[in-house]
Amino acid sequence: MARTHYFPGDRVHYVWDNELEPVLEVEPGDTVVYQTREVSDGQITPDSTADALATFDWDRVYPLSGPVSVRGAEPGDVVEVEVVDIHTLGWGWTAVIPGFGLLPEDFPDAYLKIFDLTTGDYTLFKDDVRIPVEPFFGTMGVSPADTTEKPVIMPPGPFGGNMDTRHITKGSRLYLPVQVPGGLFSCGDAHAAQGDGEVCVTGIESPMYAALRFGLIKGRQLRAPQFVTPGPLTPKSEGAGWYATMGVGPDLMRATQDSMRAMVDHVSATYHMEPVEAYVLASLAVDLKISEVVDRPNWIVSSYLPLALFR
Amino acid sequence: MARTHYFPGDRVHYVWDNELEPVLEVEPGDTVVYQTREVSDGQITPDSTADALATFDWDRVYPLSGPVSVRGAEPGDVVEVEVVDIHTLGWGWTAVIPGFGLLPEDFPDAYLKIFDLTTGDYTLFKDDVRIPVEPFFGTMGVSPADTTEKPVIMPPGPFGGNMDTRHITKGSRLYLPVQVPGGLFSCGDAHAAQGDGEVCVTGIESPMYAALRFGLIKGRQLRAPQFVTPGPLTPKSEGAGWYATMGVGPDLMRATQDSMRAMVDHVSATYHMEPVEAYVLASLAVDLKISEVVDRPNWIVSSYLPLALFR
Repeated sequence: MARTHYFPGDRVHYVWDNELEPVLEVEPGDTVVYQTREVSDGQITPDSTADALATFDWDRVYPLSGPVSVRGAEPGDVVEVEVVDIHTLGWGWTAVIPGFGLLPEDFPDAYLKIFDLTTGDYTLFKDDVRIPVEPFFGTMGVSPADTTEKPVIMPPGPFGGNMDTRHITKGSRLYLPVQVPGGLFSCGDAHAAQGDGEVCVTGIESPMYAALRFGLIKGRQLRAPQFVTPGPLTPKSEGAGWYATMGVGPDLMRATQDSMRAMVDHVSATYHMEPVEAYVLASLAVDLKISEVVDRPNWIVSSYLPLALFR
Repeated sequence: MARTHYFPGDRVHYVWDNELEPVLEVEPGDTVVYQTREVSDGQITPDSTADALATFDWDRVYPLSGPVSVRGAEPGDVVEVEVVDIHTLGWGWTAVIPGFGLLPEDFPDAYLKIFDLTTGDYTLFKDDVRIPVEPFFGTMGVSPADTTEKPVIMPPGPFGGNMDTRHITKGSRLYLPVQVPGGLFSCGDAHAAQGDGEVCVTGIESPMYAALRFGLIKGRQLRAPQFVTPGPLTPKSEGAGWYATMGVGPDLMRATQDSMRAMVDHVSATYHMEPVEAYVLASLAVDLKISEVVDRPNWIVSSYLPLALFR
């Protein structure tokens, strides 16, 4: 008989550590209900200004809810995590943090924006610019195999973790390759919205409600996470078309940067925004696609802006 | 008064050369009607087998219809190309060509598949696998500024060219930065279908009918092409959901390859195909997205398979 568990809100960890005692042990088929903290662990509040970023304590970033042990999970298995339900809890923030992001030299200054998420399916970026709210966990992972050096949460890995992959939304099923007995699943860093790439290094960082159902697939070998997500991918942005800017060249990272710089120029010129606003908007709503990766020696990365933002 | 011109089917060129005499000169607002050759220039026919690839004459690949001169276009301007109409002409082919593609070591052998495109909106990959037909020109470009060495068509550049970007479909408007007086636009290499990335190095290569309308935007500086495309992006694939495989690591190209290898494994195991069939299917219908590019030092590239293929 599948059970529902309620994850205690006061149990978080800030590094990967497979010696942590599991907070819950679940059977395959069980559901866990979470209310997770936003990624700054309370250092940003709805009243904060960009000054809060100057005193950021990185040791408190990425509070993850976990670990949850899945009974019977062993290395060589896959833990399935179904996002049964997920919903934002009233507010969120996004920031440019000096030294981080895709274009740190272009945007060296701290920037913070607070979002009202009481408005439901969309949140206002500006009076005439609205962003679809499509929440997901930026971080969902099992514990890495080797945590002797207590790795920080930021880099993802074959165990999943901080994947910041926007389409692992409600109704998705995520497949994580188990690295240690029990899997030791944790989640957090939820985003109310984010484009592919998360180019300014934040989505709309938000406290989040979620219900996750756990499954176990014995003896399935994966080298990295996989997932299935319902269609359409961008249900609130499909109708109005897309504006795309390209980066062309022999290095995919440089092409990505060139494509995004062109998008920042386009958005700031066309919609009368400061470049930093365009960069942040791109982080929340612009998608990065690799258009071609075979026409040697020049590849193309394209940034796709949904025109539905401006309706 | 805008005119319609009919581009002569016997006028093609195989390298970029800005000393070519324009075949047509058009005014901004004029439309040009094309029937373009498939990219092999007749070396592949509906009756060909993979043996045809062994004797491929690369000097005849990429026959482009052009150049068309746009009156008044100067460096520092943008030529706008609107894809007013585009339609396949009955058949197409796709191939693995030894030494090319995203995974040349994994797939060293020549492979050729012929497609019947008389079936309309979809073409059959196998009895129970159908691919949406969403045609576009793989190559549309103005002439590069420096063509003294007669550059081959394969690598794209700031002038556009062989962009292989799947969403420049019917109703799109492409913006190309003019490099030489008149722009000297050429097109060809049309695809009946292709996923982001074009991973096996071909789409469904097809002869194509198209009507393109030309515009001119004076004094607009672009560093690379841009375009606007109608939504939804994948109208025939949206409803049924997507299966995604991830590549995680510090190099975007390697992450792309890892992601695609996982997709090939997934498709061949799940749908009972040979790996090479899965690779070719991915080239025709799987999309590559950069999921995150900021969680130093590990980035994530995801391959998205539309489940609508298997309905």
